[in-house]
Amino acid sequence: MTDIVEAINESNSIALITHINPDGDAVGSLIALMHALDKMGKSVYGYCQDDIPRSLSFLEGVKRITKPINPIEGYDLAIALDCSDRERMGDCVSIMDKAMRSANIDHHISNTYYADINIVHGNASATGEIVYELVQFLEDTGDKNMAEALYTAIVTDTGGFSFSNTSARTHRVIASLIEWGAEVSKLSNRLFKNHSLEWTRLLGEAINTLKTYHGGRVSTLYVTREMLQRVGATEEHINGMIQYGKDIAGVDLAVFFKEVDPSTTKVSFRSDSLVDVSALAQRFGGGGHKRASGCTINQPLCKAKKDTMEAIDYYFKETMK
Amino acid sequence: MTDIVEAINESNSIALITHINPDGDAVGSLIALMHALDKMGKSVYGYCQDDIPRSLSFLEGVKRITKPINPIEGYDLAIALDCSDRERMGDCVSIMDKAMRSANIDHHISNTYYADINIVHGNASATGEIVYELVQFLEDTGDKNMAEALYTAIVTDTGGFSFSNTSARTHRVIASLIEWGAEVSKLSNRLFKNHSLEWTRLLGEAINTLKTYHGGRVSTLYVTREMLQRVGATEEHINGMIQYGKDIAGVDLAVFFKEVDPSTTKVSFRSDSLVDVSALAQRFGGGGHKRASGCTINQPLCKAKKDTMEAIDYYFKETMK
Repeated sequence: MTDIVEAINESNSIALITHINPDGDAVGSLIALMHALDKMGKSVYGYCQDDIPRSLSFLEGVKRITKPINPIEGYDLAIALDCSDRERMGDCVSIMDKAMRSANIDHHISNTYYADINIVHGNASATGEIVYELVQFLEDTGDKNMAEALYTAIVTDTGGFSFSNTSARTHRVIASLIEWGAEVSKLSNRLFKNHSLEWTRLLGEAINTLKTYHGGRVSTLYVTREMLQRVGATEEHINGMIQYGKDIAGVDLAVFFKEVDPSTTKVSFRSDSLVDVSALAQRFGGGGHKRASGCTINQPLCKAKKDTMEAIDYYFKETMK
Repeated sequence: MTDIVEAINESNSIALITHINPDGDAVGSLIALMHALDKMGKSVYGYCQDDIPRSLSFLEGVKRITKPINPIEGYDLAIALDCSDRERMGDCVSIMDKAMRSANIDHHISNTYYADINIVHGNASATGEIVYELVQFLEDTGDKNMAEALYTAIVTDTGGFSFSNTSARTHRVIASLIEWGAEVSKLSNRLFKNHSLEWTRLLGEAINTLKTYHGGRVSTLYVTREMLQRVGATEEHINGMIQYGKDIAGVDLAVFFKEVDPSTTKVSFRSDSLVDVSALAQRFGGGGHKRASGCTINQPLCKAKKDTMEAIDYYFKETMK
């Protein structure tokens, strides 16, 4: 941590970069560090290739994160946040390449140590947890804006403190953030209890398609173009809906089908247990992890579903042997 | 706290009592204290008038909580947990009445101080937070069983650490419980990601009835007897469903209608903001708090809904003046 503190002290202009398709940890970590560097009198610039999700628009300073269109060149220091490799920065990678020095703050164990200074803590629940530590090296204490940004980073990356990455340390950091001024119920309401009418209606439509197989071990849900139109929803509203299939008692494998067009279907798999869903996705040319994977099948939804369920039947027969 | 520690030290047989319709805090607090007293060599008995919810059946020792049928009389000490007044104990109140001494551990500010020793901490997020403190007075440290019970108590009463009762102290207590052995993701999965198929199907049915009024400020959902039958659900599956109406962006007031029988309708109101839902419920002879209330209307569902919406129209007109 001393390396990056020194580099910050020696720099005047600092670019902060986060990853494509930014999430709460990406945006929260960047904003918290931005506020801390502001207080030190640095010239700070935030960059992200993609739009910031609307659910994070309430964070103070979020509008200062811009796309890398004609960025100032030659920053004293460029810091990547929550980016496990150079590619995760998307178009912003050129900003790092043209900076005098580079740093990389991240919590993914897959991090490729691509910068001059690499602060990679694989056991941190979120990059926000590492930024919390850095802020304490840089300042006496944090303020409310930093607290809200870091709370957002950590609460989103831990699924509301429910994932196994949540440690005793995570909760102690959150305790400090509450003392810095983070308002728990306000933040929770903004982040988790603020669904659109379209999302809620689409959830009802999706649940209406719920089926279970293999004695309740497999659940399926689907969403068609017609359903999206009927409730006025867009594809982004589908995010996270597979969870409702997975959170059913007894379900080991949840499958979600999205009709992309009349001859293309996207399939997502989620598993909490022994079912290796990366193997299932690979059968259709897709990929992912053991517990979350996906593929695209060039078939209408009903045929794609039939093929997928046959592959699952086969998988269950093979693994039950 | 010294009073109750002394009383426990001086007692051999101890009855622990929790409230009717027990929730996570009621059951978790009781079980944690039971394990702590077990370790001290006390004879401990747990009582609750009603059945323990199935979602809490995984807690070690839960089967030792029995109904007060012919209870042993004359315990050295009876301790009520999470009961704001004597009535909350239901039939178990006689156990306290016949005990040599009584104690009351609770976090409700409305507590009536009905026992010989009253440990009432209104700023604790849950009774479990107070029991955590007591356990530390009684033992050097807690064990995994106590940790899981207290984690359950606190995570349920704070809505997954999202309600405004969640303090810095709450998170520090949880940090300690993780160090005692509480497994975060296992507990979260059991408590929050373990819906029945019937609940999930009923959620879909309920969302299909979603309507909004007053420019999106009011949402309504309903469940009929026929819907319950169609998905094989019972009334207990309805619990918490009103949240899906309330968590829609822009909704200030959520209303949920439950068809009890062809001529009786239960109405629940939830509000996060300025709408005083106790006033609304009172118009129909019901009651509750500013943010959560309910009433029973002796009318068929469609008529009850019409009357309720008229009362809401009137309320909005009056308060907008």
